[in-house]
Amino acid sequence: MGVKVEVNSEERVVPAQSQEKNSGTAPDTNWLKAHILITREVNHLLLEVREESELFKRICELLAGLEFIRFAWIVLAEKETFGVTPIAHSGFENGYLRSVKVTWDDSQADPGPTGAAIRTGEPVVVRDICGDPRHAPWREEAVRRGYASSAAVPLVHEGEVVGILNVYSHLPDAFDPEEMAFLAEIAGDIALGIKRLRLERKLDETVVRLRQMLYGTVEALSRMLELRDPYTAGHQMRVARLACAIAREMGWAEDRVEGLRLAALLHDIGKMAIPAEILTAPRRLTEPELQLIRLHPVLGFEVLKGIEFPWPVSQAMLQHHERMDGSGYPNGLRGETIIPEARILGVADVVESMASHRPYRAALGMEAALEEISRNSGILYDPQVVEACLVVCRNNPGVLVQD
Amino acid sequence: MGVKVEVNSEERVVPAQSQEKNSGTAPDTNWLKAHILITREVNHLLLEVREESELFKRICELLAGLEFIRFAWIVLAEKETFGVTPIAHSGFENGYLRSVKVTWDDSQADPGPTGAAIRTGEPVVVRDICGDPRHAPWREEAVRRGYASSAAVPLVHEGEVVGILNVYSHLPDAFDPEEMAFLAEIAGDIALGIKRLRLERKLDETVVRLRQMLYGTVEALSRMLELRDPYTAGHQMRVARLACAIAREMGWAEDRVEGLRLAALLHDIGKMAIPAEILTAPRRLTEPELQLIRLHPVLGFEVLKGIEFPWPVSQAMLQHHERMDGSGYPNGLRGETIIPEARILGVADVVESMASHRPYRAALGMEAALEEISRNSGILYDPQVVEACLVVCRNNPGVLVQD
Repeated sequence: MGVKVEVNSEERVVPAQSQEKNSGTAPDTNWLKAHILITREVNHLLLEVREESELFKRICELLAGLEFIRFAWIVLAEKETFGVTPIAHSGFENGYLRSVKVTWDDSQADPGPTGAAIRTGEPVVVRDICGDPRHAPWREEAVRRGYASSAAVPLVHEGEVVGILNVYSHLPDAFDPEEMAFLAEIAGDIALGIKRLRLERKLDETVVRLRQMLYGTVEALSRMLELRDPYTAGHQMRVARLACAIAREMGWAEDRVEGLRLAALLHDIGKMAIPAEILTAPRRLTEPELQLIRLHPVLGFEVLKGIEFPWPVSQAMLQHHERMDGSGYPNGLRGETIIPEARILGVADVVESMASHRPYRAALGMEAALEEISRNSGILYDPQVVEACLVVCRNNPGVLVQD
Repeated sequence: MGVKVEVNSEERVVPAQSQEKNSGTAPDTNWLKAHILITREVNHLLLEVREESELFKRICELLAGLEFIRFAWIVLAEKETFGVTPIAHSGFENGYLRSVKVTWDDSQADPGPTGAAIRTGEPVVVRDICGDPRHAPWREEAVRRGYASSAAVPLVHEGEVVGILNVYSHLPDAFDPEEMAFLAEIAGDIALGIKRLRLERKLDETVVRLRQMLYGTVEALSRMLELRDPYTAGHQMRVARLACAIAREMGWAEDRVEGLRLAALLHDIGKMAIPAEILTAPRRLTEPELQLIRLHPVLGFEVLKGIEFPWPVSQAMLQHHERMDGSGYPNGLRGETIIPEARILGVADVVESMASHRPYRAALGMEAALEEISRNSGILYDPQVVEACLVVCRNNPGVLVQD
């Protein structure tokens, strides 16, 4: 793979062969070889390049690397202004683009080759820039740069001319039917590339948009709970931040952290089904009230279990009050049977709760929280998670207060 | 665009030119032209085809269309079984594939050309099928079909041999270095195509998955409300179904219907912030209680307004109790100032509510509901929406009861 392009320079000698090609005989082997290489390269670009502007630039470079082409440029047609935007060029230009103004509105009788190609959707060949009246406004600047002939080939996307590929040669009449057929193929390829890139961009945008909607909805669900229990406002968001920091400290891949984040944002939503006066009671709860509150992982699980997350979101939520020694609820799971997401979530939940105010007590503070998880590391909490949590809170004491 | 492929047949005469090509001289113009066309076609396929199997099939057809190639096939390497799966073929085969068994596990000293190409990742050329011992197990079947030489070219994706492109010629020694360079290019193109197709599929799957998660989460949010107010269980789902049917009856595009569906699924979530004992009271509500309930569009709007939906979901929810004559709430909007989504949602909400049981009254029934919207068409409700709703309920009386 890889045609080596020779960058055109003013001093370049025109090889005899290129002139031969224009004698009207069939294309010779070297011509074919050069064109097969360009074709291949263009097609590889179409598959590999992810940006339209990059694609255009590389194609101009390839074309300007052909011996008989002195300068290649691509413009996009601007429908609002009936003007053009030069988007890429390569070869010997020396300020030519600054000197050129192209318009293509109907008011102008003769819009020049580029404008005419946009208007008609047909390629325009200027066999002799010196003699062709269509090139009159740009003749002086073109001749000064050694341009003898030119071709303007439309780039068509969904039936519409979106731009023009312009090529200039220092040879008169360089663009014979064979060469134009080749350029038309290249223009067709560029159009395919534009189509693919625009489709891809649309798909990428859809992914971004869907992700925003998903997180927005999850956060709304998260905030819904706080409408009913203002004392815990921001609790789930803060737990999510701490849990993700712990997981990253433990070396989790970002995709898995995503799933943990969703579980953390939703971990208490089962409380939605528990009377607000119990949730927000400014006193110690009775045993029956505590039993009611301890239903919240199961209630939340019921709500979330039907959603097809690629992560164990509902399980993480269900298990976030399980403890390593089997003393947790609802199922008294032990050790490794508790999924890692739930072990992280459990620690983050305890630390955030202790560090914050509650209706029935003042904040116990971060120090007390870290002391609690350290003392119970290996008993209630996963030691690795505790270790990571201590590192996170030590390195970034504000992890829970930035809101 | 478009190389016309000639389907190989048993009777085909081998043209002199193809034999010339193998004389060791540089490739001639016709060879180049044929190969430039194949290259172009392959590259167009890579940009246009959306399925791997289709890509492989079309490439085999193109190669088998070359004069000196009698048969082309592509296999995928199966890592579990150390076998191969033929996935596409073209040309004169006549049962050959059934007779061939390829394995490539290490236990086998000599795995044959295809297996060796999979193992080593290097192309394997058999210059003379009759004389080459590597082809012994398949010699008889190959010779019977007029295969004289063959080449096996690996298809590499992310550093791994995912398959093999096999070509057979009726000419001995057809695969000289020039031809192999060409086939290697084609194999590289196929690999690029596989990469692009697999990336695209992954992106497509991501979109599907994100969409499922989004709708799952929205439905969970929808059901959360019903945890607190079991009397309205399924209300939002049924309103969503009716509202979407009305919108489709009015000729809305499916994308816009999507946005309406989300708004309908969430239209009452503001009620989450209203005490359950008011929502579910089995009696007429007092005026202060009614005023509290009338806050629900605003409360829901506050929860949803931050989500970047590409549709007016939060506005539709905010306005679903507005009425055409300005008698609705919360803002007393009139006529066209109420967005169309909210006008449909309002009608669907009234019809579903009247048709269903409520804690304070029995179901009034569908007939009474349709009578209500007909009587108030143009006064409270958008006449076009009423008309569409009548058509929907007449044509599909079960629209509200299928759950």
